[in-house]
Amino acid sequence: MAGRKAAMVVEKNKKVVLRRHVTGFPTEEDMEITVDTIELGVPAGLTAVLIKNLYLSCDPWMRGRMSKHEDGATVPASDFVIGEAMVNFGVGKVVGSTHPEFTAGDLVWGLSGWEEYTLVTQPESLHKIKHTELPLSYYTGVLGLTAYGGFTHVARPKKGDFVYVSAASGAVGQIVGQLAKIAGCYVVGSAGSDEKVSLLKTKFGFDDAFNYKSESDLGAALKRCLPDGIDIYFDNVGGATLDAALLHMRHGGRVAACGMISQYNLEERDGHGLRNLFYIISNAIRVEGFTALDWFHLYARFEEEMARYIKEGKVVVVEDVAEGIESAPAALIGLFSGKNVGKQLVAIARA
Amino acid sequence: MAGRKAAMVVEKNKKVVLRRHVTGFPTEEDMEITVDTIELGVPAGLTAVLIKNLYLSCDPWMRGRMSKHEDGATVPASDFVIGEAMVNFGVGKVVGSTHPEFTAGDLVWGLSGWEEYTLVTQPESLHKIKHTELPLSYYTGVLGLTAYGGFTHVARPKKGDFVYVSAASGAVGQIVGQLAKIAGCYVVGSAGSDEKVSLLKTKFGFDDAFNYKSESDLGAALKRCLPDGIDIYFDNVGGATLDAALLHMRHGGRVAACGMISQYNLEERDGHGLRNLFYIISNAIRVEGFTALDWFHLYARFEEEMARYIKEGKVVVVEDVAEGIESAPAALIGLFSGKNVGKQLVAIARA
Repeated sequence: MAGRKAAMVVEKNKKVVLRRHVTGFPTEEDMEITVDTIELGVPAGLTAVLIKNLYLSCDPWMRGRMSKHEDGATVPASDFVIGEAMVNFGVGKVVGSTHPEFTAGDLVWGLSGWEEYTLVTQPESLHKIKHTELPLSYYTGVLGLTAYGGFTHVARPKKGDFVYVSAASGAVGQIVGQLAKIAGCYVVGSAGSDEKVSLLKTKFGFDDAFNYKSESDLGAALKRCLPDGIDIYFDNVGGATLDAALLHMRHGGRVAACGMISQYNLEERDGHGLRNLFYIISNAIRVEGFTALDWFHLYARFEEEMARYIKEGKVVVVEDVAEGIESAPAALIGLFSGKNVGKQLVAIARA
Repeated sequence: MAGRKAAMVVEKNKKVVLRRHVTGFPTEEDMEITVDTIELGVPAGLTAVLIKNLYLSCDPWMRGRMSKHEDGATVPASDFVIGEAMVNFGVGKVVGSTHPEFTAGDLVWGLSGWEEYTLVTQPESLHKIKHTELPLSYYTGVLGLTAYGGFTHVARPKKGDFVYVSAASGAVGQIVGQLAKIAGCYVVGSAGSDEKVSLLKTKFGFDDAFNYKSESDLGAALKRCLPDGIDIYFDNVGGATLDAALLHMRHGGRVAACGMISQYNLEERDGHGLRNLFYIISNAIRVEGFTALDWFHLYARFEEEMARYIKEGKVVVVEDVAEGIESAPAALIGLFSGKNVGKQLVAIARA
């Protein structure tokens, strides 16, 4: 057997690659669709998993990786490489594997490429999907770790807490709002259109909601909706919204800093907006950042609890599904103007 | 006996009163020394404690109370009243009491007036001094709650942590640095003069220290002294220093937000300085504010531990003592230009 090489099927592999590093607001033209070929198996001598990608997650944090950072800069993850497929979390099916934990046919989620097939050489970033009775796409969003981990482990809700969620109809916000209701909190959300505000109240059970684009004074809107102040601010946007919330936090309040989408496309960070951090001292406020990457060891427990909520109908999910890998660049760009309604993802294949 | 009123001694009572509300940098002329009289006892029908003040604490947070805030503004404590004695923590001796827990001759610390005698009508803010064998003045500083509570309860040190303390020779910083060494951390401090930097290294046992006024680039100074990054930043100054530290925090780092003295005298908060809050997300950093007011229930335990450290010589204290109540306005103003070396206090009387 030694020295023999099994003949492998070769397939075309369409991908979304970064054309150039981005400053400021990204455009679809910063990316392009290219096609090359891939052997549908793992090359001899390599411990790896070959994935057929089914669903790609579109997340604001990808924006940071589209820029060129100086060597040694503090960044959440390395810059995307020009001409190579971009990378993010997704759902896929194992086509071939030399890793003992995975076999062909397994459904998995984890870090993968923005392409039809990806050879994953660090299979420890993949997780087998347990609840195949649920929509597989949920593993790009609600069954990920961000909302659940951030709300339960960072915000640490208590019954009766007043909770404010920004970007509340988005992938993370919609789940946080529903978890807040399960925890017995009063929850207010903000979003960028009347349609989204309506969704918050009718679909996700928020107690109140407002369209931030129609408010001339964010602080006044918060005071109107949460006259007794905020115990938990689940922050997806940063900037002026964070600043307004800081001034309106109750003693001992917590800011779960999940995202700062208002800041990602600024060439200079919007320091002007942040004048109220000062108040964290007198009001003993905790502002805590997090990424889901820190919680993989807790994932099994998170997954069971979220799956139960979904099956019981306590958590519902709204997804915004773009069809086909060609639609991925526009779907990603749309996040930054709030085009998406709910969790933005791209369906490449259904099985 | 009913209806009879004991004749009480009447004494002159010299005090520091606020002349006008302050915007921007305060001056000595914003305060004045006045004299009125006080009966040396508690008026009939009142549950209160009459204190002879011995030591007044000078603290940056008093600056906030010297301004006029709008009704309903978020402030740590009410504005000082023009023409009345200013208020802060201090050490005193009970002269008269109708409260069951206090009797004449007791030594106490707590909220009192900037005057020779104060009638304390909320005696629950007073604490009896247990360790009268230690310098009484320590109860304005090292035996208060801020440094110990902030470092142990908010920063939560682990052995081997890299700790950075700003305003490190000041009242709180000097204690935090020594607690960090007791906890097995590597600790770097910054201060505003070479004399203070020398004090940090020789007296308080900091591993390294720098004079921030001689550094053209705070970030570079931090990188030089803490090449592997910061686990704990104990922040007494806020603004540009906080911003530089945020960029240099390690994953899972903690910022204990104790004070932001760089911000107190600004007419507009220095939002320009704060561009790096963004990094708390990717590095999972916790920024947490606190005031000692939240920890009174833990005081008995704190006091015993700090008293033991002092007696064992593990914590030493440098105080900057201004003599006489007339010196109080200058002592307070001096804090904002860093004139004080160590804990600034005012001695009014020794017993």
